[in-house]
Amino acid sequence: MIEISVSSAAGGYSVTVGRGIAAELAARISADAGASPAVVIADANTGPLLGRRLAEGLGAICFEIPPGESSKTLAWVERAASAAVGAGVDRGSTLVAVGGGVVGDLAGVVAATLLRGIRLVHVPTTLLAQVDSAIGGKAAVDLPEGKNLVGAFKSPVAVYVDPELLIGLPEREFKSGLAEVIKYGVALDEELFTRLRDRRAEVERRDLETLTAVVERCCAIKARVVSADEEERGERAVLNYGHTVGHALEAATGYTRFSHGEAISVGMAAACAIGVNVGLTPAGVEEQQRELLDSYGLPFAAVGAATTEQVLALVARDKKARGGEVPWVLLEALGRATPGHRVPPDVVAQAVDRVLAEVG
Amino acid sequence: MIEISVSSAAGGYSVTVGRGIAAELAARISADAGASPAVVIADANTGPLLGRRLAEGLGAICFEIPPGESSKTLAWVERAASAAVGAGVDRGSTLVAVGGGVVGDLAGVVAATLLRGIRLVHVPTTLLAQVDSAIGGKAAVDLPEGKNLVGAFKSPVAVYVDPELLIGLPEREFKSGLAEVIKYGVALDEELFTRLRDRRAEVERRDLETLTAVVERCCAIKARVVSADEEERGERAVLNYGHTVGHALEAATGYTRFSHGEAISVGMAAACAIGVNVGLTPAGVEEQQRELLDSYGLPFAAVGAATTEQVLALVARDKKARGGEVPWVLLEALGRATPGHRVPPDVVAQAVDRVLAEVG
Repeated sequence: MIEISVSSAAGGYSVTVGRGIAAELAARISADAGASPAVVIADANTGPLLGRRLAEGLGAICFEIPPGESSKTLAWVERAASAAVGAGVDRGSTLVAVGGGVVGDLAGVVAATLLRGIRLVHVPTTLLAQVDSAIGGKAAVDLPEGKNLVGAFKSPVAVYVDPELLIGLPEREFKSGLAEVIKYGVALDEELFTRLRDRRAEVERRDLETLTAVVERCCAIKARVVSADEEERGERAVLNYGHTVGHALEAATGYTRFSHGEAISVGMAAACAIGVNVGLTPAGVEEQQRELLDSYGLPFAAVGAATTEQVLALVARDKKARGGEVPWVLLEALGRATPGHRVPPDVVAQAVDRVLAEVG
Repeated sequence: MIEISVSSAAGGYSVTVGRGIAAELAARISADAGASPAVVIADANTGPLLGRRLAEGLGAICFEIPPGESSKTLAWVERAASAAVGAGVDRGSTLVAVGGGVVGDLAGVVAATLLRGIRLVHVPTTLLAQVDSAIGGKAAVDLPEGKNLVGAFKSPVAVYVDPELLIGLPEREFKSGLAEVIKYGVALDEELFTRLRDRRAEVERRDLETLTAVVERCCAIKARVVSADEEERGERAVLNYGHTVGHALEAATGYTRFSHGEAISVGMAAACAIGVNVGLTPAGVEEQQRELLDSYGLPFAAVGAATTEQVLALVARDKKARGGEVPWVLLEALGRATPGHRVPPDVVAQAVDRVLAEVG
């Protein structure tokens, strides 16, 4: 078991990574929670086993949302907040999020806003949530106009990561998380990249020792980056490598055709191509990235999934855009992405064209 | 025209109080707003004249909500946020709130959460908003379970207070604001108390010179208190003098029978009685407070409006409650309230009894 420290304006917190810690969470959480009633939020997948057991241990209610992105709305924020009020929460209460990115995001918005802020504990149950969304305090829900448009920065008081929970994940969900893991390697950590290449068999069969080491490494990277730049004024933006085109592709296809990881995978291919085209990214890096994505069965193209015009229009509406221009995260080398690059529109269009047209 | 500085964790801002400044707001706001599109939010009262004129000057849309507390919901947050996204807001955009407490609260929640935070300017148009809700960065909307249960701390970048806007206010709305003005005198500023007593005729006929001086004074008090304790960890709680029973009374009567100010007025009577009963408040103060409220036609009793049990149950659910116990703001002297007092339940019950039973 390791503890990784995250610093935050609202006070630091620890990410505890440990095999089997999910079984002892009630004791850990209630030791810190004081007398105020806790509330567990989960979904129909994580609620029946983990969520309700934890709630029982805490003497709390377990509020369950339907699984999937369609629950990430202000209407569900309201329902969850109402349930928490009904359970008697006060300003000393703790909200415990047991689930993947959707549960974590919704819980983050509820904890940020209910009584103008109560305590939040993340118990991420998917690979994506464990290595990414549970750390760093970003939380948001969707609007009809787009994803993650309404939210807050809300630091948890603790994050508990149990890699054993990954054993039961559906394959596509696990693969989706692997795309973010690969992103860490490509954008921030060449050694992780090499390990993912050399230990692919162990990773894919979810060997717990290998997986735990990979999760620890990713959590440490994320913790380091968000500690240095919590509110994404600079450096933190590197975590969005591949996400600009990835998000646009998800939106253009109605969030149904691609998993988040698949879309990010295609987005990484586009970002890498842009970097090569502007002369920043060495050509060999594109080949290395492509080989790794391919070996894990992740796509680096989305042939015919949308038109270039659709994707470009959505790129211009990215949350990071200012006055219609989007700053790009590009690779200077394998394991070294840098944010804030200005790219001519035709170069972007060419890269998007390519990922939409290429025979993947 | 005076400028009052407020310090805030998110960076300080100025409250500008000046007669007639509403007419020149577009120039003032656009000078700071940069290239990103602005959005005005108003209600059906403030939109048609002030809101739309300002929006035109800013090249912005004016989003209008139905007037009244029933618009303070997450559903209206979503509609306003969607409209803003439709108007092309980005992270550099400014949301301008033109209205009373409801518009300011809704706009505050939208500005705090849209794209995880955009700029906010308050143009308060009611007495209550000018002297209280527009300053200090508290924003919240209601849940079916109660008022102001979901929100955020969101500092504006500027507050523009034009006392001339008060001339057109309906009498009951103006009186409601006066209750908060009197609260400042009773709880924090004996000199203001004296002025309100001695210049009552001028205040009541809304003499602009008198009114401007009173508004400036109240803004300065609020600015001082929230600068010292933005997130209400201590001192800021004194601003809630009269609000614990006041809020409970509003809730018990479905928010229809009493204006906010009328409820706070009754709440001040209850808080003062509690203070006397526990030996903290000198008996003469109760008489002075009662005389001032009475002279302004504000109630210090709410005979038969609710049962003591109803009010006490709602008091226990106050946002400030921890483990069912509410810290009370009580008077040590005229103009000097202090927060955090523990009061025996029977003393609270007795005071509530009295304001509900007394022949006012």
